Amino acid sequence: MTTATDADLAATTSEASLARTRARSLEIEAEIDKDASRFRVLTGDRPTGALHLGHYLGTLKNRVILQDKGVETWLLVADYQVITDRDGVGPIRERVIGLLADYLAAGIDPERSTIFNHSAVPALNQLMLPFLSLVTESELHRNPTVKAELEATGGRAMSGLLLTYPVHQAADILFCKANIVPVGKDQVPHLEQARVIAQRFDKRYGRVDKKRPVFRRPEALLSEAQAVLGTDGTKMSKSRGNTIELGMDADTTAKILRKAVTDSDRHITYDPVGRPEVANLLLIASLCSGEAPEAIAERIGDGGGGALKAEVTAAVNDHLAPIRARRLELMNDEAYLLDVLKAGNERANEVADHTLAEVREAMKMVY
Amino acid sequence: MTTATDADLAATTSEASLARTRARSLEIEAEIDKDASRFRVLTGDRPTGALHLGHYLGTLKNRVILQDKGVETWLLVADYQVITDRDGVGPIRERVIGLLADYLAAGIDPERSTIFNHSAVPALNQLMLPFLSLVTESELHRNPTVKAELEATGGRAMSGLLLTYPVHQAADILFCKANIVPVGKDQVPHLEQARVIAQRFDKRYGRVDKKRPVFRRPEALLSEAQAVLGTDGTKMSKSRGNTIELGMDADTTAKILRKAVTDSDRHITYDPVGRPEVANLLLIASLCSGEAPEAIAERIGDGGGGALKAEVTAAVNDHLAPIRARRLELMNDEAYLLDVLKAGNERANEVADHTLAEVREAMKMVY
Repeated sequence: MTTATDADLAATTSEASLARTRARSLEIEAEIDKDASRFRVLTGDRPTGALHLGHYLGTLKNRVILQDKGVETWLLVADYQVITDRDGVGPIRERVIGLLADYLAAGIDPERSTIFNHSAVPALNQLMLPFLSLVTESELHRNPTVKAELEATGGRAMSGLLLTYPVHQAADILFCKANIVPVGKDQVPHLEQARVIAQRFDKRYGRVDKKRPVFRRPEALLSEAQAVLGTDGTKMSKSRGNTIELGMDADTTAKILRKAVTDSDRHITYDPVGRPEVANLLLIASLCSGEAPEAIAERIGDGGGGALKAEVTAAVNDHLAPIRARRLELMNDEAYLLDVLKAGNERANEVADHTLAEVREAMKMVY
Repeated sequence: MTTATDADLAATTSEASLARTRARSLEIEAEIDKDASRFRVLTGDRPTGALHLGHYLGTLKNRVILQDKGVETWLLVADYQVITDRDGVGPIRERVIGLLADYLAAGIDPERSTIFNHSAVPALNQLMLPFLSLVTESELHRNPTVKAELEATGGRAMSGLLLTYPVHQAADILFCKANIVPVGKDQVPHLEQARVIAQRFDKRYGRVDKKRPVFRRPEALLSEAQAVLGTDGTKMSKSRGNTIELGMDADTTAKILRKAVTDSDRHITYDPVGRPEVANLLLIASLCSGEAPEAIAERIGDGGGGALKAEVTAAVNDHLAPIRARRLELMNDEAYLLDVLKAGNERANEVADHTLAEVREAMKMVY
């Protein structure tokens, strides 16, 4: 008989929990196909820079698919999260406008989806107060996302906002009573914090309607999408100069892809482990064209890096062409973009005010 | 040459800082007497139970004096702070109503003062978000009030709300741009957190009006009032059954004071160190009657504990009689009390919305 260490046990537990989340996620996918009207999704982005191909292929495209299947979609421009790990907001207005253009150009329909920003919805932010009473300091510390974000900031002192970030995120999810949240597997524990808060609120403060808790317990919609890397085979990130932004033009895209890292073997094959940079370019081409990466590789054959890059460039530019055209139009109509945000904020405030009223009633804070 | 330890240094620093605060406090008192209109005070209570003589003599009476001198007074019913260190809100509605009656009966004038509660002012609570970005986790930990509150809860896990409590308190003070806050000497570091946040906000996020920061730096108005103890000579606290509540009637007051702890020396003297219980009763009588405690002691002479108790009972009941009569009337008009709170909350929301708009403008979060 062997003795498992705590770390083994934790790994096993988290593997088991991930497997359960994965299985449940597949069930949810099937339920959405059967009746999407039962679902509300909350997702969003920090306005810290322009959206790039990694964001688009990894998340935004899927959000549009969910919306088009009939899932009620709430999209958060997480402006307060910009300052969790940095000292300033940067050119935030410009970035918010760019993000709105990215969303709409990619197919988010403001008639069906609600786009809103944190700082415009006070009742959402107020939920931080009761929610903070439901978590302990050590739980905040244990949150893996907080740990990861802290490491990414390179020894910068942890701000109170970063420490309490999972609680704020719980408020984002719970205020609009979203029941699904698209997450990568690293973010599963993060969503668990929101689920725990929903459950504890019910237990500690009670209900308004005896038959149902104030907050639904949101579930993870686990993304199985392979992550697209930058043109140098590392994480796609603006600071590395390896990104293709949605808002770039076709020529700039071609220029960046011409400098992409490949390898010295002129025979192109799809081998993610042995030839990660080549495989990444094939994956990008595949996700844009719909053709399998192996098939693309075979078609290129001995054409080498040059032919591969030409292939990827064409696939990316073809796929993004209508999105980019629409984006250009939108960027020329800032007033329309801001109207969309304004309408979304109005709707978010209505819902947040309603939820806060329920919260205050459950907590007996109505005088 | 001796080497000071860190602890020595910290003690010296904090002694020096306290001395400065005390000196500045006296200056402020003088400035108030000269021109009270320059000042706005923020103060308040957690609705965790009925106000007693300790609260009244220690703080409430002074608030009424400040108000009557012409200082604009903001009184916070800190309902969210009830759950920093406990799992439920208790009979909170009843307690809020009782607190309103206590305030008004003691002389707070709702025409001149703003009485409001936390949970009704979302824009105030939203300030938590930018403010949390301005403090580090270690600063939150170092806060002596957080430490003390944690110790008082007897090993209970620290909640996120208790940890971030000084930041929420900073929001209370700063949102209404109070420039003075009455504090006991233990709370001086607490106020310092609000001052630091005001200063850092200015430095990091800038201004709307170039000539002045968004937030004024509040100053401490140090209370020199001697703390009144319970009838057993320990801290006055409902759970010890040693309190005289403002809302009690004269007979109950007499009954409680008859059981007060004294000592076996029938000759009554005012000796706070040697005879703390007797001195405390003399102090209570003195604060209620305005006569010096030594003079009261001399008048009682060899009358012993019985005469002392009769003296205190008369002084307390005489002083509280008009307050209690008014309180009884007020408690019979709950609708009026709630109207006062409603009007206060409206005013607080107006001011909080205005401050939040400035904050969003300074932070460039206006789209």
